[in-house]
Amino acid sequence: MSDTRLRADGARVLADLHTLRAIGSYKTGVHKPTFSDAHVRSLEWLAARLPEAGLCATIDGIGNVLGQSNKAGPKLLAGSHLESQNYAGWLDGPLGVIYALEAARVLNPDPNVKGAVEVASWCDEEGHFGSFLGSRSFAGGVSEADIDAVRDRSSDRTMRQALASAGLAGRPRLAAERGRHIGYLEAHIEQGERLETSGLKIGIVTSIVGIWQYRITFTGEQNHAGTTRMEIRKDAGLALAKFCVAIDETFPDICGPRTVWTTGRITLDPGAPSIIPGRAEMLFQIRDHDPAVIERLEARLHSMADEFTARGPVGVAVERIRAGAPALMNAGFQNEIEAASRTLADGKSARMPSGAGHDAQVLATIMPAAMLFVPSIGGISHHWTENTADADIVTGAEVFVETCARLLARASR
Amino acid sequence: MSDTRLRADGARVLADLHTLRAIGSYKTGVHKPTFSDAHVRSLEWLAARLPEAGLCATIDGIGNVLGQSNKAGPKLLAGSHLESQNYAGWLDGPLGVIYALEAARVLNPDPNVKGAVEVASWCDEEGHFGSFLGSRSFAGGVSEADIDAVRDRSSDRTMRQALASAGLAGRPRLAAERGRHIGYLEAHIEQGERLETSGLKIGIVTSIVGIWQYRITFTGEQNHAGTTRMEIRKDAGLALAKFCVAIDETFPDICGPRTVWTTGRITLDPGAPSIIPGRAEMLFQIRDHDPAVIERLEARLHSMADEFTARGPVGVAVERIRAGAPALMNAGFQNEIEAASRTLADGKSARMPSGAGHDAQVLATIMPAAMLFVPSIGGISHHWTENTADADIVTGAEVFVETCARLLARASR
Repeated sequence: MSDTRLRADGARVLADLHTLRAIGSYKTGVHKPTFSDAHVRSLEWLAARLPEAGLCATIDGIGNVLGQSNKAGPKLLAGSHLESQNYAGWLDGPLGVIYALEAARVLNPDPNVKGAVEVASWCDEEGHFGSFLGSRSFAGGVSEADIDAVRDRSSDRTMRQALASAGLAGRPRLAAERGRHIGYLEAHIEQGERLETSGLKIGIVTSIVGIWQYRITFTGEQNHAGTTRMEIRKDAGLALAKFCVAIDETFPDICGPRTVWTTGRITLDPGAPSIIPGRAEMLFQIRDHDPAVIERLEARLHSMADEFTARGPVGVAVERIRAGAPALMNAGFQNEIEAASRTLADGKSARMPSGAGHDAQVLATIMPAAMLFVPSIGGISHHWTENTADADIVTGAEVFVETCARLLARASR
Repeated sequence: MSDTRLRADGARVLADLHTLRAIGSYKTGVHKPTFSDAHVRSLEWLAARLPEAGLCATIDGIGNVLGQSNKAGPKLLAGSHLESQNYAGWLDGPLGVIYALEAARVLNPDPNVKGAVEVASWCDEEGHFGSFLGSRSFAGGVSEADIDAVRDRSSDRTMRQALASAGLAGRPRLAAERGRHIGYLEAHIEQGERLETSGLKIGIVTSIVGIWQYRITFTGEQNHAGTTRMEIRKDAGLALAKFCVAIDETFPDICGPRTVWTTGRITLDPGAPSIIPGRAEMLFQIRDHDPAVIERLEARLHSMADEFTARGPVGVAVERIRAGAPALMNAGFQNEIEAASRTLADGKSARMPSGAGHDAQVLATIMPAAMLFVPSIGGISHHWTENTADADIVTGAEVFVETCARLLARASR
């Protein structure tokens, strides 16, 4: 393996990433929400590049871009996403798409390579409208009614309106063709600092974390903040604060070694300075690779809510609003990434779980899937200062292309 | 005293209150934000009633309505406000305005009454735009630049835009004429349950609470809720919850007998389910009748913030954004309310502090001021279910008119 003719062109990869960075740029990052003008132009730019890799390009009815090959032999699916979080980094998404494009450009035209890499850009991985809508649509898990129901969390625009203004309304949606792909490979920035602090270049993802999300609601009694004595108050906001602190005190004793939990949003109702909040709500999230850990934590959440309610004066209700099982990455694919890293990254790789969600967890439900990470400078993610050293981007591209070559070769044997 | 010719007409008072309730009604209450169409129509309705009381009506450039008398003798100023909190009660404000109107209607035309009651409706007591802007304008404490700067907290409309659409742009603002008034009298619903639970009909306000407000800001580090380990997080939201609980544990030991404190609003930034909040903010309010108590609590707030910051990992900053000194009500005026209650409310009155803010605290800075309360059913306030028994409304009106008569008589002696 590691035929130099089949090596990634690092300069071309960097140039393409900078071209995408210039579409919707914000400071040194990008602001490219799903179906923003900058996002749609990025999809069109990708579609225009795919023929260079011998691929036939389609932008489908949910904003997925797919490049399909007519070449004989096994097909490997590869990709990531092109939209960004608000005012976020330039590599979160585009890195994996350009690596896939590069692999297709290098491998597909070569007559000695059996089969082809097919390229995908999954729409809305960042969840402006929903949860992995693009890849779930491809995997068959999104109905027309689901699309009817979703709105942009920031602008309140419906997905139907956004699809119409992007010129995609009424287009058919592409679905996975059973048995067509030997598997799926995705590259991504690490979004943590483990690779950087260990001097490593490639992270081989073993599993993608499961994400469980809860709406916890506190019901007290709205009243006047001047005339209501402290003793008779039923302050929903104070109960919420106590609940947050109780979680912080309780969870460390019963969580797993890598469990994380986050209260990302708090709302007091009515939210006025002179009114005791009668209702409060928090969005709470737990992530772990082990469903048994989540079950234990969720049970505790419910028993804590029951204790709070029994003690009074505020009622607490826990409602699960998202349950995402963890996804195991394919072991054989992991071995090929490791082999490619030995050849092209001095073996500076390590196996590691992903604490972030990725489209690969959706693809893993219908085919073998794997991911590789490149280092994030300072571990920064979901912020416009997110970055990766140019040399690490190039090494990652080389390992990615080599891994694709190995996976196709293995499937052809 | 208690000349029956000078007695309030209870049926007329109730009819007027119901007329105002019908303008901008919401369920059994009203939705009448400052400068809403319903509010402006209420101001115009009042201005049209004032001539019946021998008063010359003006709606001024900040939305205050003032009825002025040409009658010889002492002038007593009386009133309250006509706008409401959002979706709130029908009596909070209008009760005091209609009592004042009734006193003027009964007393002003009578040749045996020396002097007159002048009627005021102060704009924006409920603080949709600012803090007591109407009465503070009358007392000389609001500049044109202050008006330029304020916006409706709900709609973001500027006060200038609101004044223009109400047809009040460019009108002069009325200011208190030094020495014109012997004092100010205001009636209001209690907004608490003390009168009701004690079987009393009239509350004689001894002082109006001081309200101090703080913006407490927590600065941590925004990061990914999946890839950032618990040990290295700087979660601003969690720090805020701990600070709320620490206040709840600390303040009871050092507060006064009637101190109240409230966290009315919490904001996490960016407020997304998968992002650790890097910044958080709470609006915190303390009310007390004793500035020394407030000073003690404020000092503790600062020392707690310093302790939190020193301990880390999140910095806490306390900023005072409103300091409202408590206002003492005039002792002589209180005695006249008590005397009137003896005659017309079987002596069922009690002296009590006001935990809510009122325009009377602003007027108290430029003239003797006093307030009387009528019972609130169940103590409910700032909610559309707020109510007072008809009989209590009528008793209150009678005591109010009698008090006005006594104050004018006393000033004529």
